[in-house]
Amino acid sequence: MADTATDLTAAINAAVDTYIDLLTNGTPEQIADLYAETFSVEDPIGAPLRTTRDELVEFYGLICNLDEHKATLKWKKVAGNTAVFEFHLFTKAGDAGFEIQPVDVMVFDENGKVSSMRAVWDPATDLKQV
Amino acid sequence: MADTATDLTAAINAAVDTYIDLLTNGTPEQIADLYAETFSVEDPIGAPLRTTRDELVEFYGLICNLDEHKATLKWKKVAGNTAVFEFHLFTKAGDAGFEIQPVDVMVFDENGKVSSMRAVWDPATDLKQV
Repeated sequence: MADTATDLTAAINAAVDTYIDLLTNGTPEQIADLYAETFSVEDPIGAPLRTTRDELVEFYGLICNLDEHKATLKWKKVAGNTAVFEFHLFTKAGDAGFEIQPVDVMVFDENGKVSSMRAVWDPATDLKQV
Repeated sequence: MADTATDLTAAINAAVDTYIDLLTNGTPEQIADLYAETFSVEDPIGAPLRTTRDELVEFYGLICNLDEHKATLKWKKVAGNTAVFEFHLFTKAGDAGFEIQPVDVMVFDENGKVSSMRAVWDPATDLKQV
């Protein structure tokens, strides 16, 4: 049991690191692969839930298909089946650069796949043009 | 609608500040009053859910009834119906001092009452004797 918990903690830590790396270097499909078969994504909080792989791929395409996109992990904290982490995201399309710094809450299933993601940031106040 | 959203954001910000203050200066009953009629508390993540007022009062009594207990908010971030915040908690009973620094995720109902609280910290690694 202890080993199983330790394994899950390690898997969750690795999944968060991979998520951040893929936001810079990956494809929408690779990011979607981090999710469980059944999941929900609320990003930002208050947005309609995304629950299908097609919606995920479309959503992450909004980042991964831009001219420039770079995510940097600020910190993460993992306990049980849950990770909370803050990251900085810079995107640029043409001359328009934007940055946000969300705090994401991810819940994982027993296989280390994301079953729920909620991103705490407010488009009205947190989206900065740079 | 914008006013309602702004009001909820203000109510959530105030509730988090009150929560931290009550962990130092309040009673378990005052803390329980911050919760909605229907709620769940998972603290730390992985612990059995607490869902009744009696369980809440007993739980917060574990802190509020100690000789010394002081909570300090490190930061908070609010979006939509959700707050995420980190705080430092010091407790002392007799000669035994302990500190933890959880990241709590609180979801609020439309009246600004807590409907869900999950505390991200791991007793195995985050509980420090001081």
